[in-house]
Amino acid sequence: MTTFVYDFTDGNKEMKALLGGKGANLAEMTNLGLPVPPGFTVTTEACQEYLRTGREPDELAEQITAHLERLEKQMGRWLGDPDNPLLVSVRSGGAFSMPGMMETILDVGLTDVSVHGLAAQRGESVHSAWDSYRRLIEMFGRTVCGVPAAEFDQVKRHSDDPKEMVAAYQKIFREHTGREFPQDPREQLDLAVRAVFASWNSERAVLYRRQERIPADLGTAVNVMAMVFGNLGPDSGTGVAFTRDPATGEPGVYGDYLQNAQGEDVVAGIRNTVPLQDLERLDKKSYDELLGHMARLEEHYRDLCDIEFTIEHGRLWMLQTRVGKRTAAAAFVIASQLVDDGLIDADEALARVTGAQLAQLMFPAFEVGAETRPLAHGVGASPGAAVGPIVFDSARATALAAEGQDVILVRRETNPDDLPGMIAAQGILTSRGGKTSHAAVVARGMGKTCVCGAEALQVDADRRELTVDGQVLREGEEISIDGTTGRVYLGAMPVAPSPVVRYFEGELAPNADRLIAAVHRLLTHADARRRLGVHTNADTGADAARARRFGAEGVGLCRTEHMFLGDRRPLVERLILAADDHERDRALAELLPLQQADFEDLFRAMDGAPVTIRLLDPPLHEFLPSLEELAVKVGVAQALGKDPGADLALLTAVRRMHEENPMLGLRGVRLGLVVPGLFAMQIRAIVQAAVAHRDAGGDPRPEIMVPLVGAVQELETVRAEAEQIIAEIGDGLPVRIGTMIEVPRAALTAGEIAQAADFFSFGTNDLTQMGWGFSRDDVEGAFFSRYLELGIFGTSPFESIDRAGIGRMIRIAVDEGRAARPELHIGVCGEHGGDPDSVQFFAEAGLDYVSCSPYRVPIARLEAGRAAISGTTSDSR
Amino acid sequence: MTTFVYDFTDGNKEMKALLGGKGANLAEMTNLGLPVPPGFTVTTEACQEYLRTGREPDELAEQITAHLERLEKQMGRWLGDPDNPLLVSVRSGGAFSMPGMMETILDVGLTDVSVHGLAAQRGESVHSAWDSYRRLIEMFGRTVCGVPAAEFDQVKRHSDDPKEMVAAYQKIFREHTGREFPQDPREQLDLAVRAVFASWNSERAVLYRRQERIPADLGTAVNVMAMVFGNLGPDSGTGVAFTRDPATGEPGVYGDYLQNAQGEDVVAGIRNTVPLQDLERLDKKSYDELLGHMARLEEHYRDLCDIEFTIEHGRLWMLQTRVGKRTAAAAFVIASQLVDDGLIDADEALARVTGAQLAQLMFPAFEVGAETRPLAHGVGASPGAAVGPIVFDSARATALAAEGQDVILVRRETNPDDLPGMIAAQGILTSRGGKTSHAAVVARGMGKTCVCGAEALQVDADRRELTVDGQVLREGEEISIDGTTGRVYLGAMPVAPSPVVRYFEGELAPNADRLIAAVHRLLTHADARRRLGVHTNADTGADAARARRFGAEGVGLCRTEHMFLGDRRPLVERLILAADDHERDRALAELLPLQQADFEDLFRAMDGAPVTIRLLDPPLHEFLPSLEELAVKVGVAQALGKDPGADLALLTAVRRMHEENPMLGLRGVRLGLVVPGLFAMQIRAIVQAAVAHRDAGGDPRPEIMVPLVGAVQELETVRAEAEQIIAEIGDGLPVRIGTMIEVPRAALTAGEIAQAADFFSFGTNDLTQMGWGFSRDDVEGAFFSRYLELGIFGTSPFESIDRAGIGRMIRIAVDEGRAARPELHIGVCGEHGGDPDSVQFFAEAGLDYVSCSPYRVPIARLEAGRAAISGTTSDSR
Repeated sequence: MTTFVYDFTDGNKEMKALLGGKGANLAEMTNLGLPVPPGFTVTTEACQEYLRTGREPDELAEQITAHLERLEKQMGRWLGDPDNPLLVSVRSGGAFSMPGMMETILDVGLTDVSVHGLAAQRGESVHSAWDSYRRLIEMFGRTVCGVPAAEFDQVKRHSDDPKEMVAAYQKIFREHTGREFPQDPREQLDLAVRAVFASWNSERAVLYRRQERIPADLGTAVNVMAMVFGNLGPDSGTGVAFTRDPATGEPGVYGDYLQNAQGEDVVAGIRNTVPLQDLERLDKKSYDELLGHMARLEEHYRDLCDIEFTIEHGRLWMLQTRVGKRTAAAAFVIASQLVDDGLIDADEALARVTGAQLAQLMFPAFEVGAETRPLAHGVGASPGAAVGPIVFDSARATALAAEGQDVILVRRETNPDDLPGMIAAQGILTSRGGKTSHAAVVARGMGKTCVCGAEALQVDADRRELTVDGQVLREGEEISIDGTTGRVYLGAMPVAPSPVVRYFEGELAPNADRLIAAVHRLLTHADARRRLGVHTNADTGADAARARRFGAEGVGLCRTEHMFLGDRRPLVERLILAADDHERDRALAELLPLQQADFEDLFRAMDGAPVTIRLLDPPLHEFLPSLEELAVKVGVAQALGKDPGADLALLTAVRRMHEENPMLGLRGVRLGLVVPGLFAMQIRAIVQAAVAHRDAGGDPRPEIMVPLVGAVQELETVRAEAEQIIAEIGDGLPVRIGTMIEVPRAALTAGEIAQAADFFSFGTNDLTQMGWGFSRDDVEGAFFSRYLELGIFGTSPFESIDRAGIGRMIRIAVDEGRAARPELHIGVCGEHGGDPDSVQFFAEAGLDYVSCSPYRVPIARLEAGRAAISGTTSDSR
Repeated sequence: MTTFVYDFTDGNKEMKALLGGKGANLAEMTNLGLPVPPGFTVTTEACQEYLRTGREPDELAEQITAHLERLEKQMGRWLGDPDNPLLVSVRSGGAFSMPGMMETILDVGLTDVSVHGLAAQRGESVHSAWDSYRRLIEMFGRTVCGVPAAEFDQVKRHSDDPKEMVAAYQKIFREHTGREFPQDPREQLDLAVRAVFASWNSERAVLYRRQERIPADLGTAVNVMAMVFGNLGPDSGTGVAFTRDPATGEPGVYGDYLQNAQGEDVVAGIRNTVPLQDLERLDKKSYDELLGHMARLEEHYRDLCDIEFTIEHGRLWMLQTRVGKRTAAAAFVIASQLVDDGLIDADEALARVTGAQLAQLMFPAFEVGAETRPLAHGVGASPGAAVGPIVFDSARATALAAEGQDVILVRRETNPDDLPGMIAAQGILTSRGGKTSHAAVVARGMGKTCVCGAEALQVDADRRELTVDGQVLREGEEISIDGTTGRVYLGAMPVAPSPVVRYFEGELAPNADRLIAAVHRLLTHADARRRLGVHTNADTGADAARARRFGAEGVGLCRTEHMFLGDRRPLVERLILAADDHERDRALAELLPLQQADFEDLFRAMDGAPVTIRLLDPPLHEFLPSLEELAVKVGVAQALGKDPGADLALLTAVRRMHEENPMLGLRGVRLGLVVPGLFAMQIRAIVQAAVAHRDAGGDPRPEIMVPLVGAVQELETVRAEAEQIIAEIGDGLPVRIGTMIEVPRAALTAGEIAQAADFFSFGTNDLTQMGWGFSRDDVEGAFFSRYLELGIFGTSPFESIDRAGIGRMIRIAVDEGRAARPELHIGVCGEHGGDPDSVQFFAEAGLDYVSCSPYRVPIARLEAGRAAISGTTSDSR
C-alpha cells in the first residue's frame, strides 16, 4: 500500500519532492524537537494521482482518518466537537513555491455548532471565535468554491460584528454555490485538500510553470496542521524572523512582531509591526526561546533561515522555516561568514553565490544614505540605476537624446513602435507588465536599466503626465529608477560606481569592507577550482588592459571591424568602391599600418597571453551610407533639377551591394575568399605586429580566427594563404589558426573542420540566430515577450544558451572536433560567454575557456568555479 | 610481395579500382579472346605509393622488366633492338576519366639506332618510321619534360621531312631540358610511367577532382601496350565504332573509319573520316570480324559499347572499349531495347537511366529537322531552348524585357552587376567560363537557359556587337541558343514542346514512338518499385491537376501566400495596416471566403489524395510597397512642398515593419502567434472548404502545415487553436496537423516536436539557407561560382542536398522523430524534392515522400524507383 500521508514526525528536510518544501521543513523542525503544532502532510504523489485520474487515491481518505485520529488524540480536541473542537489549517506546499496555487485555509473544523464550543473555551474572547468562523467561510468560499472576494468585502464595509457577518457570509455562500456552507468538518477538510490539488492547474500556476520550465506533473503536497492562535490577547502574537540580516548579511536578530494577531493580519498590513527585538520586553521567555531555536536552525541548516512563529497565551509555536531569500550582497557576506563560523567549507560557500548576484553588485547604484523620495515600486526588470527627465513617447525620447539629454522613457507598456525611444533613453519605466513584458525583454537585450509594472503609476501619454497617489509629474521632471530593486524615486538621486568594480579596478583593497572581502575570497576560491579559462572580448588595448585587471587570461575575440570605423571610414570607403585591383591594393596598403598599430596595442596589453583576432566579419556595405537615405537624397536632388553628383555613383554602388538579408550574405570567410587581398592584409598586419612586439622584447601570442566557416574547404583555403604569409614574414613566430563555429553546418561537420583548425571558438550569437532562424535585432522586440508569455522560451535564447537546440550543436561540435583532433582548443566568444547559466553549460560541455566582455569576466570566473564543484550546486537548472 | 604490374591476360573488367577503367577493359577483351595487342598495366597502387613517397615502389622496376620480357617474347621484337625493335604506347587510365591527366605517349622504344631497324622493316615506308620517331620526341618532350608545344609547331611550319624534323626536335629537346633525348628505350618507358603518375597532381586534375569530389588519393594506372600501326598503307587504318547509335539509341553499325592513319590523326581532324559502313567495301574480312567483336562485346557488357580499333596490313586490332556515352534519349531507348533483347532485366534498365536525363527530355527543344545556321558551340550550362534578339548589357536587357521582348543577354562573362539583366533575359550566352562560372551557376539557380564559354565569340559590349569568324552581329539581331547541347545558332529557330511532356499531358500515346515507349515503360517500372511517394507543390487547382497528370499522388505543399497577391493586395494591405482588432477582424473576414474558394479548387483537383496546406509564411511587410521607393516618393513630395498624403502614413508603417533580415524575422509560426486571428482564419477556410467539398460528394484529405517551427511549444500552441476550430466546424472530418522542419533547431529537437506533429515536411531551402547561414538570393550570384571554382562546393547546395551538413540534420530529425512517434509521416517539400541526387538521399534517409513542382514529378518518380533498387545503381555518389 502506498503511503499518501506522513505525520510531521515521519519526514525530514530531504523529502521535498514527496512532502513539498514546507512539509519537509515542518517535519525537520518537529524532529529537531522544536515546538511545531502537530500535523501531517498529504504527499505530492496523492496529488499526482488526483491530477491523472480526476479523483483521490482510494486509500487516501482512510489514511487521513488515521492521522487525524492521532492528531485529535495528541491535541485532546476533536474535529467538529461541540465542546472541544480541533481546528486545523490546510496549506499547499510544492517542491517549488508557485504563484497561483491555493495557499492557505485556516480554522477548518468550525461549524455552526463547534463555534459555540470554541467560544465557550475562549471565555473573554467570544468575539474571536466568531471572527475565526467568519474567516473560515470567507477563505473556504473564495478558494475552494470560487465565490468572488468582492461579495465578502461588501459585507465587511457594512458590519463589524463577526456573528452578523457569519450569517451574511453563509447567505453569500449559499447563493453562489447552491448549497449550505458544509457543516461536516471532515467534508471541509476533504474539499480543502482537493481544492489544493486542483489549484495546481490554475491558469496562473500553469503559466508560471511554463515560464519557469517547472515540469507540469510534479503536483503539490498539502499540509494539515493543528491551529494555534496569536490573537487571543496581549500574551499572544505572531511574527517573522531571520537568523541574519537578509539585506546586508550582518549577523544578529532581524524580524517583525505583531501582538495579539494572526499571520494574515501581518500580511494585510492593517496594524504596524514592531521590531523583533521588542519581543524581549513583551515576553522575555518566548524571546529567549525563539533565539535559541533560531541559532539551532541556522546551525542545522547551515544557512540563513527565515522563520514564521506564533505565540499563544505565552507559548511559542514554530509554524514554518526555510532557507531565507537574501540580497546579492548578503549572499556573499553570509557565505563567507558561514565559512568563518565553520558551518560550511569554501566549496559550499562558492555554491551558495551566483554569477547573477555578482553581476548585480557590479552595476552602479544609488548612493547609500542619500535622501530618497520614494514614488513607486515595480519589478526590477533590467538592473542598473538611471536618472533623468521623464518623456512619454518615442519621438520625444529620440529628440531629447539627440540634444544630449539622458531621459527616462515612461509608458504604460511598450511595443515595437517604441524601439527608437527605448534605444535613445537612459532608462525605461512602465506601469504594466512583468519580467517578460516587451519593455523588460528589450531592455535586458540592450543592457538598459528598466523598471516594469510600477502599478501605482497612472501614465497619460496624451497629456504627457503621470500621476501617483494624486501627485502629478509632467514631461521633463526628473526621476530616478533602480532596475535592480524595482524602486522609483522622485528627483535626481546621486549614482555611485559599484564598490565591487572599484575593487576589481584596484581602487579599493580586498579588505576594504565585509562585502569586498567576501567577493575577494569567493572569487579567489573560484579561480583555484575552475578548469574553464576566462578570456575577454576586447578590440582595443585599453579594453584588454581593463579585462586583465578583472582577471582575463587572454583576448578570446578581437573584432577587427571596429578598426574600420571612425576616421578610417573614408579609407574603407575607397577600399570598397575601388574600381580595380590597383585602387583596392592601394587602399589596403594604407590600412595595413593602421591595423598593425591596433594589434601592437593589443599584444602589449595582453603580453604573454593569447590574443585571438577575428578576420573581418561584416558585409562591406555596412561601412557605406544607408540605401534609403541615399536614395531620398538623390531622388530629391533630381526632382529639384539639381545634379546629385557623387551621390549618384555612391547610390549605384550601394544598391549593387545591397543585400536582402545581410546577416546571411557576403560576409566573414566568404568576403575573404571573394575580395582579393583583404584577409591577406589583415594577416600581414597581425604577423608584423607580433614580430614587432617580440622584437621590442614582448611575448606576443597571436591567434588568427576565421569567421563564418561552414565547410572545411573554406578554412583550408584561408589557412593556406595565411601559412604562406606567416612563412614569409613570421620569422619563426608560432601563430595558431582556428575558426569560429557559428554556422549550424560548421557544428555538424566539426569533425571535418577540426582537421584544418588549431582551435574552435563558438560564436553563440550567430549560432543562436541561425539555429533558431531569427535575427536578434529583428525579432527581440517583435515577439520575444509574447513567446516568454506563451512559455515558448523560459528565458531569451540570447540571454542564456538554449541547451536542447543550440547546446546540442555545441556538444556535437565539441565531441566530434576533439575526436578528430584531441589537442583542439575550444572556447566560446558569443555574449553567452559571460552569462552565468551558460557558463555552467560550457563547463559541462567540456570547453577550455569562455570569452566575454571585460565586465563579465569576474562573473564568468565565479561561475566557472561553481561549475567545477557542480556536484554541490543547486540552482542551475 | 605486392603485385604492381598485371598482364592484360591477368585482369578483368571488375578490377577498375586497381587497373583503371582502360586497363580493366583491355584485360576483359583479352580474356574474351579478342585481338588486343599484348601488354600490361601498372596498378594504381604503384601510383599511390609514388604519390605518397615521391618514388616508385622498389619492386616496380623488376616487375616491369619481367612483363616486358614476356611481351618481347610474345611479339618476337625487343625494345631498342637495332633490327627488330618493339614499340609500345604508354597511356594513363584511372578509375574515373579526368581532364588534366597525361594521356598518351606513342612509339616508346624508338632511338637514333632502332629507328633504322623500323625503317628497314617497313620497307616502302621509311618515311613512316621517321615520322613515328618525330611523334615520340614531340609527345615525350611535351608531356614528360614540359617542352612548350609551340616550339615543335614552329618546326612543323617550316619542314615536312620527318628526318629533318627529328633533328630539329632533338635540338629543341636539348635546349629545353639540358640533356639529350634519351637513347635508352627503357629509360623512355620509366620516365613516361613516372610522368603519368605525376600528372595525377597537375593543377587541372586537382581542380577537376575537387569540383567532382573525386578522392585525391586514388591515383592512376598506366597501360603499356605493343604498338600496332594503322598508317602502313591502304590495307591499314584506324577507327571508332559504337554498337548502337549513341544519339538516338537505334540499333545498327555506327562509327567512323580513316584509311592509312593513326588514331591521333582522327582526333586532329586533318583528314576526313568515312562512315564505318564503308569499311565493308574497303576490307570485308576486317569489317565482318569487327562486327562480330562488336556483337560479342555488347552481349558481354550488356550495353552500348564504344570501341577504338586499328587495322595493320589487313589485321584487326582492338585498342580500347568502354561502355559508351549517349544522349538522354538514347539512354532510355537503349535501356528499353536491352530488356527486349533479353540482355538485362527491367531493374537494371531503370538503373541505366537517370532523372537528370529525363529532365533534359522535358525541356522544349528546337524543332527536329529545322534548318540550322550554326554560329558557335559552348558548354550547355543550363538546359532549354531560348530565342531572341541579343543585348550586351544588363540595362538594355531590363529595358527591352520591360517592353515585352524576350532577349538573349550576351556577355564575355557575367558578374553580380549583371543580375538584373539575367533576370530579365530569356537566355544567357557567354564567351568565357564553364559549368561553374557565375553565369552558369546563376542561370541554373533561376532555371534559365544558358550557354557558357562559346569561345569562338568575340564579345564587344562597348560597341554592342559580337564577332564570330569575321561575321559581325549587332544588338537586336536574333539568335537561338540550346542550353542542353551548348549549340548557338543564327536566327530565330522554331521551338517545339517536348514530346515527353506531351505524352505526360496525355497528348501523345504511350506507344507514340520508341522514346516515349521507353520512357513509359521505365517510369511504369519505377512506380512499381519505388517506396517513396511523389507529391507536388501546387498553389492552384490547375497546377494540382497538371501534377496529377504527371503522376503526383497528393499536394505536398500549397503556399497560401500566393493567395494574398494580385487583386487581393488592397485587402491584404488593409489587414496589415489595421489600426485595431476590429479593422483587422473585418479584413480577415473578407479574406476567409476567398481562401476557402482557393482550397475548394485544390481539394477538387486532388480529390481522394492528401492536400498539405502551409499556413502563411512570409513576413507581412512583403505585401507592402518597398521602403526605398516610398521614402523617395515622400521625400520628393516634401522637397517640392507637396503633401505626401497617404504615402506618409504608409511610409511610417512600412518603416516600422521594416526588418534588417526579413528571412530571419517575424514570419511563419511567429506571425501566427503574434497576429491575432490570422492563422485561425486560414484554418477555418481550410476546414470549411473541406467540409463543403465532402458535402458535395468529394473526398477531401486536408493537412495543415505550420511553417518555421523551431520549438515544440510553438506547434503545440497553434495545434491547440486548430483543434478547437476543427472540433467546432469540422463535422468529424479528419484533419492532420504537422510542421515544416526548416529551422536547424527543429531538426535537432525533432524528437520533442514529433510529440505534437502528425507529419514532418522538410523545407530544405530554408534548412540549407539557415544551416549554411546564407540566403540564396543574396549569395548565389555573389560568390557561388568562386566557391565552385575553389572546390568548396561540388554542386550548389541549393541544387543538390548537402549530405554532410544539411543531410545530417535531416537524418537526425527522421531518426529521432520516428523514435518519438513511429507513425510519423515524413516528406520533403523544398526544391530538392525534384532533384535526382537529392531524391536518392531522401530515399536512403527513409522519408515517406518527396514533393516537387509539377514538371519535376516524373523525374522524382524515376529516381524514387532507381533508389528502391539502388544496390544496382552506379552513378549516384
